[in-house]
Amino acid sequence: MTYTVVVGNRPLRQYLLDIVVNFNRGIEVVEIVGKGKNISRAVTLYNMVLNRLGDSVVLDHVEIGSELDRRMKRVSYIKIRIRKV
Amino acid sequence: MTYTVVVGNRPLRQYLLDIVVNFNRGIEVVEIVGKGKNISRAVTLYNMVLNRLGDSVVLDHVEIGSELDRRMKRVSYIKIRIRKV
Repeated sequence: MTYTVVVGNRPLRQYLLDIVVNFNRGIEVVEIVGKGKNISRAVTLYNMVLNRLGDSVVLDHVEIGSELDRRMKRVSYIKIRIRKV
Repeated sequence: MTYTVVVGNRPLRQYLLDIVVNFNRGIEVVEIVGKGKNISRAVTLYNMVLNRLGDSVVLDHVEIGSELDRRMKRVSYIKIRIRKV
């Protein structure tokens, strides 16, 4: 099962807590999604998860690209997939 | 040969031009590096390169992580490797 976190304006520690709780509940894969300026925050969140959970998780895949938003404007994104080991 | 571009405060189109020129000069691999808030800009630059050069380049590898800066503060980074095909 995959749990997806879209990074928005909430403090990163809230997303971190959310992710830790979900891994503890048996979720095996967490995908962190960041768009536009939140791409940087998504990478920082990934580093926070790694710091917190250490060797119990690994980076599975990183995808980068761009997509059209609702206003038909091109927006960059990152998708970071972390797997429980 | 690898050409490395560290994304700073210059307009992204300048880095784009730089990358296009280097590919045309025979460079085979370009690595785009973004740190902290420039991570988002690095991904946007990657999308600009893809848009400009289309099928003549492919995404080779994406690395994310964190490192200590000069003030011993942890900073997130992304390294995006693009290869000429």
